Amino acid sequence: MLYKILTTDILKAYILDIEEVSTYLQEGHIEIHEIGDGNLNFVYNVMNIDTKRGIIVKQAVPYLRIAGEGFPLSRERISFEIRALGFYQEVVPHLAPKIYYADEAMSLLIMQNLSEHIIMRKGLIDALYYPNFTEHISTFLARTLFFSSSLYLNSAKKRALVDKFNSNRELCKLTEDFVFTLPFMEDETNDINPDLFNEAYALFAENRFKKNVLKLKYIFMTQSDALLHGDLHTGSIMLNQKETYVIDPEFAFVGPFAFDIGALIANMINAYLSHFYRSENREYQMWILESIREVYIKFENKFLALWSQYPNSALLKEGFICENELNEFKAEFMQNIFSQSVGFAGCKIARRVFGIAGVEDIRGIEDRERRANAERLALRIGKDLILNYETITNVDMLIARVEKG
Amino acid sequence: MLYKILTTDILKAYILDIEEVSTYLQEGHIEIHEIGDGNLNFVYNVMNIDTKRGIIVKQAVPYLRIAGEGFPLSRERISFEIRALGFYQEVVPHLAPKIYYADEAMSLLIMQNLSEHIIMRKGLIDALYYPNFTEHISTFLARTLFFSSSLYLNSAKKRALVDKFNSNRELCKLTEDFVFTLPFMEDETNDINPDLFNEAYALFAENRFKKNVLKLKYIFMTQSDALLHGDLHTGSIMLNQKETYVIDPEFAFVGPFAFDIGALIANMINAYLSHFYRSENREYQMWILESIREVYIKFENKFLALWSQYPNSALLKEGFICENELNEFKAEFMQNIFSQSVGFAGCKIARRVFGIAGVEDIRGIEDRERRANAERLALRIGKDLILNYETITNVDMLIARVEKG
Repeated sequence: MLYKILTTDILKAYILDIEEVSTYLQEGHIEIHEIGDGNLNFVYNVMNIDTKRGIIVKQAVPYLRIAGEGFPLSRERISFEIRALGFYQEVVPHLAPKIYYADEAMSLLIMQNLSEHIIMRKGLIDALYYPNFTEHISTFLARTLFFSSSLYLNSAKKRALVDKFNSNRELCKLTEDFVFTLPFMEDETNDINPDLFNEAYALFAENRFKKNVLKLKYIFMTQSDALLHGDLHTGSIMLNQKETYVIDPEFAFVGPFAFDIGALIANMINAYLSHFYRSENREYQMWILESIREVYIKFENKFLALWSQYPNSALLKEGFICENELNEFKAEFMQNIFSQSVGFAGCKIARRVFGIAGVEDIRGIEDRERRANAERLALRIGKDLILNYETITNVDMLIARVEKG
Repeated sequence: MLYKILTTDILKAYILDIEEVSTYLQEGHIEIHEIGDGNLNFVYNVMNIDTKRGIIVKQAVPYLRIAGEGFPLSRERISFEIRALGFYQEVVPHLAPKIYYADEAMSLLIMQNLSEHIIMRKGLIDALYYPNFTEHISTFLARTLFFSSSLYLNSAKKRALVDKFNSNRELCKLTEDFVFTLPFMEDETNDINPDLFNEAYALFAENRFKKNVLKLKYIFMTQSDALLHGDLHTGSIMLNQKETYVIDPEFAFVGPFAFDIGALIANMINAYLSHFYRSENREYQMWILESIREVYIKFENKFLALWSQYPNSALLKEGFICENELNEFKAEFMQNIFSQSVGFAGCKIARRVFGIAGVEDIRGIEDRERRANAERLALRIGKDLILNYETITNVDMLIARVEKG
């Protein structure tokens, strides 16, 4: 199949021709609405209003949609999303949208419509509680990271996995630039709140934390631990009281374990600190901090349980080392993951303050002074975590530092 | 061109049909000798006895040659050698054999005949001095590692490099097994000197050093710093008093900087310690130790000089960080490379003692007691380096420990 853009006039016929899709939707009146938030892809909500069955159709176009055809961006990015979602179907089938159909040549993905779930960032802004979230997301992290690592795969399968994701170069480059570089120096892409000009230029002139940013960037670029989601913020999670789904893994690549964990922690910290200037709901803030703790503790326990369950891998041959030293090795290994997660979380928090991509939690605060104060607090916490990540070795230490602000 | 094995009856016609080859050899009487040491590939010395011009023809076959067609081994391994030698032509053209012709589909490589050079391991056993060796090999290490790293390449080019070498899975697996695993546990592939049975089983029961072997193995498998030779022992170096050539990069893959450096240091240490039980030539031993020091110091200086010369890369954007903190970052970065090199050197030394692949320097010692003593010393040094690599932060510390034995 040669690539063509599915414009609205041909979309319906095209997708109903796909057996998996027509079987799922069943016969009836089909309605189609474009719902892409518009930055990158075309996204359609396709609904059979008779049977109430719906699907999401997503197609990548070979340019940056928001900017138009003059800004080319390889449409192959959706191939990595398709491959990552395929992996999620294997290892966390209930924590990612079901795929009905995918065609890399067409840059086309047809999947479950999560109509009963909302984007987590919005839920956190509205101070909603999610009782199952830490259980679900810790399972997601433990299983996706473990089963794509050299702690489970054999050597050849690990290399085959790298092969499938290594060429996701455009989106990895976006992270290198917009998480680890440009938000910390003068650059035209930055979006600096005029109330914080002094703080911004003071930050750009500080070099001690930048040294640690370089260390973390180097780890991001060269440490091939496991398949990452690559952009695991609270905008990439849809949920309700019962269920949690991780969506949009188009940044997927084989990178450091700690990057996904750090991204999630960063976004939860942003939500936490924003409520000083939003709801002022201390109880809710405490729930967020407790959730950070639970996410990490549960992740670690589940990851270690899987590791015990599979004693043979690219790394380990059963009988190579006795239980005692193996457990020491694992403990150091996990502590290293945690520290790096703190460092990545720091970068993710700090980069949101002056970088091109702000988060609604903070930038959406309407009162100008409150917003500025939220940004100042985010900056302090982000910088502190970057400066000290190597000595922050457990989640209680992390939470204590965040609370100290 | 479909693959076919170039048996001796068709070899001559086939290669003389290649214009680059016939042009180089010129007209005259061509003589062909099979000279492969026989483990993996067919290797022919092709000489025009009239013009005295010669070439080496190397072809991989889809099985382990020494064991026969019943032991399949992918012939694609030579593709990685061809690609690595192509890279060497770009960055160190005078330190690797010139390629006249290469055809990955035919698993065929035709290159310079280094008839005036000998394998370095043999020269070291014979206690020969090589006055230019440290200058040459430090250039080789600095340039091949720097120009294939994220400290020079941009993000997309680094990923393209990983693409070219990532599927060298069979040979990477050999290293995982025979450098980091099997020589340290009971395994049928080991080749234990009966005089050292006690030491071997004592080693297999020790777990503290194995924890560090696991750390180093994990780094080997997941740290994608730069394109490595992958098997840089003194049998992969041909030289004479004037020139040095690195050959046989069939293990090439993108891995940790420190692995090539460690392999070289390990083999120089083996040569050093073997002379206690061979020549007893202290002066020569001191030359080897001084050469280890020079190799590392010169490598570090050249690597840092290149790094200063190219301020933009996947990692660095000019202006991101001031000189002072950048230099601190570089100093820590280099120290980390050194420590890991010590750890890898330890593995490489220790694995030669009981593992399948011994080194001639030690296993070739004819007197049984002397050989056993050399193996005991190698084991002590190897284990010491593995146990302490993280605190051995400069080359003087390393040499002091090796001398202490």
